[in-house]
Amino acid sequence: MDAGTGFDGMWAELAGIGRDATSGGYRRFAWTAPDLTCREWFTAQAKARGLAVERDRNGNLWAWLGERLPGPAVVTGSHLDSVPDGGAYDGPLGIVSAFAALDALAADGWTPPRPVAVVAFTDEEGARFGVPCIGSRLLTGTLDPTRAAGLRDGDGVTLAQAMRSAGADPAWLGADRSRLARIGAFVELHVEQGRHLANTSAPVAVGSGIWPHGRWKLTFRGRADHAGTTALGDRSDPMLAFAASVQQARTAALHLRARATVGKVTVRPNGTNAIPSEVNAWLDARASDEATVRAVVTEVVDAARRRGAEDGVSVDLAEESWSPAVTFGGDLAARVASQLGGVPVIPTGAGHDAGILAAAGIPTTMLFVRNPTGVSHAPDEHAETADCHAGVSALAAVLADLAADDSADPVPTA
Amino acid sequence: MDAGTGFDGMWAELAGIGRDATSGGYRRFAWTAPDLTCREWFTAQAKARGLAVERDRNGNLWAWLGERLPGPAVVTGSHLDSVPDGGAYDGPLGIVSAFAALDALAADGWTPPRPVAVVAFTDEEGARFGVPCIGSRLLTGTLDPTRAAGLRDGDGVTLAQAMRSAGADPAWLGADRSRLARIGAFVELHVEQGRHLANTSAPVAVGSGIWPHGRWKLTFRGRADHAGTTALGDRSDPMLAFAASVQQARTAALHLRARATVGKVTVRPNGTNAIPSEVNAWLDARASDEATVRAVVTEVVDAARRRGAEDGVSVDLAEESWSPAVTFGGDLAARVASQLGGVPVIPTGAGHDAGILAAAGIPTTMLFVRNPTGVSHAPDEHAETADCHAGVSALAAVLADLAADDSADPVPTA
Repeated sequence: MDAGTGFDGMWAELAGIGRDATSGGYRRFAWTAPDLTCREWFTAQAKARGLAVERDRNGNLWAWLGERLPGPAVVTGSHLDSVPDGGAYDGPLGIVSAFAALDALAADGWTPPRPVAVVAFTDEEGARFGVPCIGSRLLTGTLDPTRAAGLRDGDGVTLAQAMRSAGADPAWLGADRSRLARIGAFVELHVEQGRHLANTSAPVAVGSGIWPHGRWKLTFRGRADHAGTTALGDRSDPMLAFAASVQQARTAALHLRARATVGKVTVRPNGTNAIPSEVNAWLDARASDEATVRAVVTEVVDAARRRGAEDGVSVDLAEESWSPAVTFGGDLAARVASQLGGVPVIPTGAGHDAGILAAAGIPTTMLFVRNPTGVSHAPDEHAETADCHAGVSALAAVLADLAADDSADPVPTA
Repeated sequence: MDAGTGFDGMWAELAGIGRDATSGGYRRFAWTAPDLTCREWFTAQAKARGLAVERDRNGNLWAWLGERLPGPAVVTGSHLDSVPDGGAYDGPLGIVSAFAALDALAADGWTPPRPVAVVAFTDEEGARFGVPCIGSRLLTGTLDPTRAAGLRDGDGVTLAQAMRSAGADPAWLGADRSRLARIGAFVELHVEQGRHLANTSAPVAVGSGIWPHGRWKLTFRGRADHAGTTALGDRSDPMLAFAASVQQARTAALHLRARATVGKVTVRPNGTNAIPSEVNAWLDARASDEATVRAVVTEVVDAARRRGAEDGVSVDLAEESWSPAVTFGGDLAARVASQLGGVPVIPTGAGHDAGILAAAGIPTTMLFVRNPTGVSHAPDEHAETADCHAGVSALAAVLADLAADDSADPVPTA
């Protein structure tokens, strides 16, 4: 394997791509110029190491080591896209660490006994088309390809149009069962997005599972009118029911021990002196079990509709995505934790491609690298370089172990 | 005077300019292409009638009849710009009616004993640069020209840049005292923006005055973070204090008998799975007296800050515009009402260029044309054609009366 850039060099190469000078955050939305630049970087890194690169029918990138070897493959990787003004680590840390882990193994003279691949899943965040983990959902057949192709971004551009503009053919979108059948195990390294490790001596943890979570779009429809001349009793102002939903989201999350967030809002016509005709808001809800998540959504919608009924405002609910609870293969997580010297085993409230693959029956685990403040999806997201290097070492150890393990069988192709 | 297009013809000519096919509303923002097209239409109508057209230093358009006659001028008109997805009548009805009233007077063989002008004030709504009545405020010296030139639209374009792109020189912005001194009286005809006339037999009313009103920008600053992984106690989510401000605006308006509206909101980064770092919201508040308006704003900000203190969210307040109470010259309104056969005399909660001119000491009145639903600033804004024609007749009578009245003195130039 040829030498590529080392961890610190790869990190520096990515640092400037898609970074907004004002916010300091990243805007690497799927199939936009910064995303394509990240993909070119991935291809160049793979080629520098002599890895065989391919883009699958759903736009995910794969870099293969020993692709002709027999046996189920060990796959590692993450994603390159970001939320609006996201941090540098969420996604790219898993891919940079994957290449660096292969470098570390090669430097030790290790050669893989079975195929190993680095994957960059497309559009994990769902920042552009509203559905997260589009690449892994399509691969596993849990997202309908016709629905995916027709998803629209904020400017009305469909995923199909965006792919075509980037030279990719959306006609091939859909479940990729033979590829899925090749994956014997998947491990995703990720920056921690909370503070479990912040006050411990452990730079790395193993993931036990992912909370069930989903996204719901709430549409509040009233009647546009003049803010100065319309008597209060004549108004159908959707902003009031929207405000009630924001407050109930917090109230419900508190008493149900869940997480609920309204982070995205659009208003029509959005004029300073016009009562809005319509407010759209997106609710993100998560909890340790599915019934609790559903209870949060019900409480929010009920509160919105109670207020809406006072104002002649309708409230519609649409589920944009739903991710069931995921428990990473119990013995795999325990074995990895033990192999890494008894590191912590923690759950996460965040969705990941690892969760999609686990739900599809692939033996899957995650490694989390310590984040001193726990901040994520924001420019302050951080991991110390020494902790990142510890993550690379842990990932290398896990890959070598999984590649040597004959028990990691491929999933059935049925 | 040559014949221009009649009322119905003029109305049809304007109907397609800047109309959004999806919403059915108008998007005629100052100095954008639809606004420039409306200005070309104004110039063509004036020229067809042999009126002398000029654009003043602040971008307002004037069409003069008998401009060399002695004595203070009688001016009528309104504006051509719109709010986002606004109705067809707010503004244009006053200008179309002005030309039609001059046509009606000319058809009766009337010639003006003093100068008469039709004016189209620039950017009355403030939809693009956030400050309403920019043209009349600059003319009267109540808006600082340096501040005006630097106002930015949502894309970061300044008023100065927008004017230059349209071939207007922003270097001349500012108070225009000699022009103001020529105005002996101003009358603005406008679609009614409430339902005072809806259940009466009167198609037209006279305005008694304008409620004091203003716009305030509220900035809620928290900390962006991951919606799934950040514990509730670790959040500084500005959406909650924003929601509290929306609810308090309605509560305060109810018990203080005022009007308060939050119609415009922007969120950063506005991602479905990111706790926002910042929410900006605009509060529009109005009441019959200034102390009540101030009390509404204080209640809203206090409620926002109480909630913000719980979450580590700061709340900043900036006054973007303030319009004091206006009472149209008492005897002028009464005389016009009496002259029109005892039509209703009503106040309005909406700001108008007429209010700015009245505050500058110009004898001013308004005519309101009945609006069956009272809806305004929305595509459903409407006036029956027969009522519009009644408005033209009333305006013609008022213009003839004002032009004949030697008591309407110009304001001092000091």
